[in-house]
Amino acid sequence: MTDIYAWGLGTCRESATGVMLDCFFPAPQKAPEADVSSAILANFEVGVSRIEPSEISAKLAGLPEHITAGLAPLTECDRPLVSVLLTNDSTIESTAEAYLKLHLLSHRLAEPNSQNLDGLFAQLPNVAWTTQGPIAAEDLPAALTRAQVSGEHLEVQSLDKFPRMVNYVVPTGVRIADASRVRLGAYLGEGTTVMHEGQVNFNSGTAGPAMVEGRISQGVVLGAHTDLGGGASTMGTLSGGNSVVISIGESCLIGANAGCGIPLGDRCTIEAGLYITAATPVSLIDENGEKVKNVRARELAGGSDMLFIRNGATGEVQCRTNRRAIELNEALHAHN
Amino acid sequence: MTDIYAWGLGTCRESATGVMLDCFFPAPQKAPEADVSSAILANFEVGVSRIEPSEISAKLAGLPEHITAGLAPLTECDRPLVSVLLTNDSTIESTAEAYLKLHLLSHRLAEPNSQNLDGLFAQLPNVAWTTQGPIAAEDLPAALTRAQVSGEHLEVQSLDKFPRMVNYVVPTGVRIADASRVRLGAYLGEGTTVMHEGQVNFNSGTAGPAMVEGRISQGVVLGAHTDLGGGASTMGTLSGGNSVVISIGESCLIGANAGCGIPLGDRCTIEAGLYITAATPVSLIDENGEKVKNVRARELAGGSDMLFIRNGATGEVQCRTNRRAIELNEALHAHN
Amino acid sequence: MTDIYAWGLGTCRESATGVMLDCFFPAPQKAPEADVSSAILANFEVGVSRIEPSEISAKLAGLPEHITAGLAPLTECDRPLVSVLLTNDSTIESTAEAYLKLHLLSHRLAEPNSQNLDGLFAQLPNVAWTTQGPIAAEDLPAALTRAQVSGEHLEVQSLDKFPRMVNYVVPTGVRIADASRVRLGAYLGEGTTVMHEGQVNFNSGTAGPAMVEGRISQGVVLGAHTDLGGGASTMGTLSGGNSVVISIGESCLIGANAGCGIPLGDRCTIEAGLYITAATPVSLIDENGEKVKNVRARELAGGSDMLFIRNGATGEVQCRTNRRAIELNEALHAHN
Repeated sequence: MTDIYAWGLGTCRESATGVMLDCFFPAPQKAPEADVSSAILANFEVGVSRIEPSEISAKLAGLPEHITAGLAPLTECDRPLVSVLLTNDSTIESTAEAYLKLHLLSHRLAEPNSQNLDGLFAQLPNVAWTTQGPIAAEDLPAALTRAQVSGEHLEVQSLDKFPRMVNYVVPTGVRIADASRVRLGAYLGEGTTVMHEGQVNFNSGTAGPAMVEGRISQGVVLGAHTDLGGGASTMGTLSGGNSVVISIGESCLIGANAGCGIPLGDRCTIEAGLYITAATPVSLIDENGEKVKNVRARELAGGSDMLFIRNGATGEVQCRTNRRAIELNEALHAHN
Repeated sequence: MTDIYAWGLGTCRESATGVMLDCFFPAPQKAPEADVSSAILANFEVGVSRIEPSEISAKLAGLPEHITAGLAPLTECDRPLVSVLLTNDSTIESTAEAYLKLHLLSHRLAEPNSQNLDGLFAQLPNVAWTTQGPIAAEDLPAALTRAQVSGEHLEVQSLDKFPRMVNYVVPTGVRIADASRVRLGAYLGEGTTVMHEGQVNFNSGTAGPAMVEGRISQGVVLGAHTDLGGGASTMGTLSGGNSVVISIGESCLIGANAGCGIPLGDRCTIEAGLYITAATPVSLIDENGEKVKNVRARELAGGSDMLFIRNGATGEVQCRTNRRAIELNEALHAHN
Repeated sequence: MTDIYAWGLGTCRESATGVMLDCFFPAPQKAPEADVSSAILANFEVGVSRIEPSEISAKLAGLPEHITAGLAPLTECDRPLVSVLLTNDSTIESTAEAYLKLHLLSHRLAEPNSQNLDGLFAQLPNVAWTTQGPIAAEDLPAALTRAQVSGEHLEVQSLDKFPRMVNYVVPTGVRIADASRVRLGAYLGEGTTVMHEGQVNFNSGTAGPAMVEGRISQGVVLGAHTDLGGGASTMGTLSGGNSVVISIGESCLIGANAGCGIPLGDRCTIEAGLYITAATPVSLIDENGEKVKNVRARELAGGSDMLFIRNGATGEVQCRTNRRAIELNEALHAHN
């Protein structure tokens, strides 16, 4: 029996010359149960295929109601639909596959760094995302002229390979103050707030409730109850020269305008305005305020209960035990 | 005689299930004069009430023209209007009250930190702010599917409790380069420019002309002629653990990528890239360049004519007398 | 014979009282060849003039196809067109001239700092840029009320003198993740990506392929293959008190949350989180790690192959030879 990696049925939009610009999958499925897999495999082709809306009802017949409910509105579409059925998590070879994998992330069906995203950039066309929908980048100048001549207004929101997430996927329990800052493919845990200065790239996000006022680079994940302060930076791997994927654990506080270039465990704090890169020399200070030794920050990667500051008198970057976090933690447990 | 704290008459929008999503008050009143108060109290119920547009003309009969002029267009509305009449500044108990208080701030009728905002978050629903108007967050997935199926484009700008200010209130003499960054409830003094990287939360803002290229957190107010540099941070009380409300006086310069965690008086400068928190150790330097003493930044809270730098040779955070500001000030007075 | 500095033919939008709000020139020309100049001068008035769409075909008769192709759609306009014909690069004296010069920049026909922009701010009205097109700032409150009353939704994107570039000009080979961050008048070299946190002001930009995740202030230009990290700041001359125009050469890396207040040559790096202003004391370190001397950063202006860090142990700002850049450069040349 063939397993299914993922399946999506939805709409797509195309350029004047037939280039696919985007796909919208209202109820994508990942690794469905055996009987659901069988029903999907019986009615849909493996790979990317086009389906007439009139065919859907029959094709969905064997699927459970929790899946078909979200797909029923597609029968009213007046354009062909697109089905993407993947039996393996292999290299992305089409725009439709790319969109399905991005949907899986934002629907919390696939965690960041869990999918094979090779080929993603190559398969995503550069699109003008406008208030009239997507337009191929090369068609935009003519479209702008037509709009101006006809007295309409064409508003371009973005000229990018990735659209904003919330035009496609709305995860439960999140707030996003500026939707342009969260790309499709972001993974936002329930209870996450992304403020105006927050930014979440594709294949990155938060594992649980978190306050995001800084930038989550591609591949970076924040643990639950972590606060990424205003303008705070997490170092990515796409640019900046870092090769280690950064993750930040639970109950951490990365201060405003601070930055983090090493993975952190739980209950860590980086004070506002301090940027820790892997190469930063750090003085380890014990509980008596005595220096233990000098290290590079990368040697502290993954540690918990660390407080990073730059001493205001000496300019030395120091790592102390994050007493406040430990006390908070003890207090929380004492109340259990 | 009963005094009026505030009154607003306007439109509202509701979800499919009748949940109020927003209110728009074109000419809200705060503490009107006695005869205006009497006229309002005679014709409108205390609290939140619904009014048919056809009733308005009669009900506004006794009000002065400067108030009725802004309300006259409401007679043409084809939906019931909403009146919010508050006799006290008490805890917010409805969405309509929340919107009225936010309007008062942005109309410059109530200064930040002058109103009782208890209950605000609880009374504001999480709303998808779209180019087709507000949609209840829980209705958004279905709305997105409908739009895709019908070939329309639904653009979601924000998924948040607060809408952008300029869709509701346009204070005179301001420029806002990116409207998504200024929430309804921001207070922007005449002559204020908010650049793309500027951000102004509700219940915060500027008392006079100011250049805002950084983030003004909830509760924070900048004095006239103050420049908050690009990416500069003001520490808020909603997150970050600070309990003192920050204010920044007149003619201050908070440099680009700098940050401020203490209240400042007038003519203070924090150099670009330096973050001062309440706990930062600071060396006080006199006019001869001699160290006077070491303090924590919180001990300098509220002071004027201070220049904060981090010495590039020693890494020490220093506070010097802001000679440039003093000289500027002397020069300005010499020309009076 | 009279030379032409620049010429544009396009549409414009006006307020209810006839104030020009914007112009759109689909194919502006700068310093055209002699025969093109002659044809333009023969058919269009010097200065700003209005043209009926029906007149265009005849007036464009003598122009080459590569110019007329982009202008042909204007014949279908139902409003008068605007022609701006400048024989000199003189002070801007009208809104239409201002728009032409901004178009020249974004069309890569005029480099930043190469045009006379005197009068620009005075000639640009403050406009509400909405999803229904531009509205004069003073007309916005009434327009918002009308929209609310009629049940339409009016979305205000910006309240500013400058519109977003991509509503007017779409340079080839660029990506702009958030279009609201790039003003008309930005100059983006082919291959440039502006991420969500990137920002490009008018009369500034990139000379070639570049990654822009920080803020490019008015007048600042980045060389090819330079990376301006997330939240990084370039010090401008409009505010911040700097009088030297900053430029950054090729193959530089300004780290995340860093800042640059001096001109840099090629292959320079400023580490993440470090802000270099002209006045920053810097210790020059030789290849053996020995201090050579202390300087102010301004003395290093324009230098190449410099690496700026703040020593994590001593807090001292240091400038070292950027070995990685040199090695990279040698490796690149070795492969030629």
